[in-house]
Amino acid sequence: MAFKCVSQKVAQAIDVELMSSSGGFSIDQLMELAGLSVAQAVQKSFDTKKNPNVLICVGPGNNGGDGLVAARHLYHFGFKPSLYYPKQPEKDLYQRLVVQCKNLNVPIYKELEQAGDNLVDKSDIILDALFGFSFQGEVRDPYKEIVGIFEKTSKPIVSVDIPSGWNVESGPTEHVKFQPQVLVSLTVPKQCVSHFKGKHHFVGGRFVPPSLAEKFKFDVPVYPGADQVVEMNL
Amino acid sequence: MAFKCVSQKVAQAIDVELMSSSGGFSIDQLMELAGLSVAQAVQKSFDTKKNPNVLICVGPGNNGGDGLVAARHLYHFGFKPSLYYPKQPEKDLYQRLVVQCKNLNVPIYKELEQAGDNLVDKSDIILDALFGFSFQGEVRDPYKEIVGIFEKTSKPIVSVDIPSGWNVESGPTEHVKFQPQVLVSLTVPKQCVSHFKGKHHFVGGRFVPPSLAEKFKFDVPVYPGADQVVEMNL
Repeated sequence: MAFKCVSQKVAQAIDVELMSSSGGFSIDQLMELAGLSVAQAVQKSFDTKKNPNVLICVGPGNNGGDGLVAARHLYHFGFKPSLYYPKQPEKDLYQRLVVQCKNLNVPIYKELEQAGDNLVDKSDIILDALFGFSFQGEVRDPYKEIVGIFEKTSKPIVSVDIPSGWNVESGPTEHVKFQPQVLVSLTVPKQCVSHFKGKHHFVGGRFVPPSLAEKFKFDVPVYPGADQVVEMNL
Repeated sequence: MAFKCVSQKVAQAIDVELMSSSGGFSIDQLMELAGLSVAQAVQKSFDTKKNPNVLICVGPGNNGGDGLVAARHLYHFGFKPSLYYPKQPEKDLYQRLVVQCKNLNVPIYKELEQAGDNLVDKSDIILDALFGFSFQGEVRDPYKEIVGIFEKTSKPIVSVDIPSGWNVESGPTEHVKFQPQVLVSLTVPKQCVSHFKGKHHFVGGRFVPPSLAEKFKFDVPVYPGADQVVEMNL
C-alpha cells in the first residue's frame, strides 16, 4: 500500500489531539468537514440523475453524525437522501443535525420496513454511517439487521471511515465480511483498509496540520484543487 | 440584476433564523461553510502558483471569523496566507480558529508595518474580512488605516460578504468607495451588490433550505457539482 494506515489507538489519539486546546477544532467543525467530504465522494462516484436515492444508515455516535451532515450536503448536490436512524441520541449536536435534515424534508425512518417496502430496495446507493474507528466487538441490535442486509444486497454501499462491523485493524470478521464499493477514510486510513476490495477509496478531512501528521507518522495526501476528498490508488 | 438582494434587516433575520432552534445550525458550522466558500472563490479567481501570498484582513466579529476559516482552507489549497488581525477578541470560537492557523504556521500580525515592510506590499491578494452585513456607521481605528489602503492599492481585493465600510444597502460612502475585484456574498447577496463593479461575484453558503429562501423571498442559486460557491452573472 502506497500510504500509511493507523491503528485504532492512534486514530483515537489523533481525534483527541484535533479537539484538544492545542488542536483547536470543535466537533461541529470536524463533523461538518467529514460529512462534506463523504458527500463529495458519493458525488464523484455516482451519477446524481441516474442514482439519486441514497439511504443513509445512521449509527448512534459520531460516524452517524458524519452521515447526518453528508445527508444535508447530498440534498444540496441534487441527490434524494433518506435516513434510517433507529436510535436517535439526545445529544444536542445530533438533534440539531436532524433538524437541518428535517428542514430539507429529508425522510427519517426508525424502522427498515415502511408500509411493506424495504428502505434498501427503494434506494440506489446505501451510505453506511453506522460505526467508525472506535467500534469494538460485535454488531448488536438494532444494527444487526441492517448489517445483515449489507452482506446480501447488490446495491452499492459507501462506507464512512470503515465498513461497519469490521475490525478497525484486522478487517472482515466471522460475522461481517461485506465489501463496500466505496470507502471514505476520514483524516487517515485505518489498518483494515488493506482488506478493502471495492472500486474507490477516498481520503477526506482536509484539515490535518502537517505537524500533526508528522507526530503520528502518517502522510497528508495531495488533494486536487479545492476538493475535500482525494481518491487513492488501490 | 437577475437575482434578488436583501436589506440589512432581512440579512440579520435570516442569520437569526438559521441559528435558532428551528434552523438548527451552530455558528461553528455556518462559519466553517462560509469560510470554505470564500477560500474556494479565491481559488477559482487566482492562480495558486502565480499569486500565492494572501493577506487576510480580519475584523473583530463574524466576518473576521469567516476570514480565519478561509485562511486555513487557503493554506490547504496551496496558498500562503498571512493574517492582519489588529483586535483579537477573547471569544472562544475566534481563539480556536487562531490556534488552527497557528498550527499551520500562518503568520499573524497586529500591526500593518513589519520590520519596515508593509504587509500589503508583500501580498499578491488582499482578503477583506473586516466587516459584514451587520456593519453600520463609519470605519474607526484601527481599521481606518487598512480601509484607506484598500482605497489606494492596485492589489486585487476579495471582499467577504460586503466591501468593508460600504453601506449594506446603499453601497459606497463618502469615505469608502473602493471596488474589490471579487465579491463573495454569503447566504444571499445584500442590496449594496448593485454598486459592485469588480470582475467576479460569487455567492457562497450552500446550506440554505428552500423553505427559508421562500420565507425571506430570495432565490437559492444553482451551484455546480459539489462546489460551495457559484459565480453570478454581473
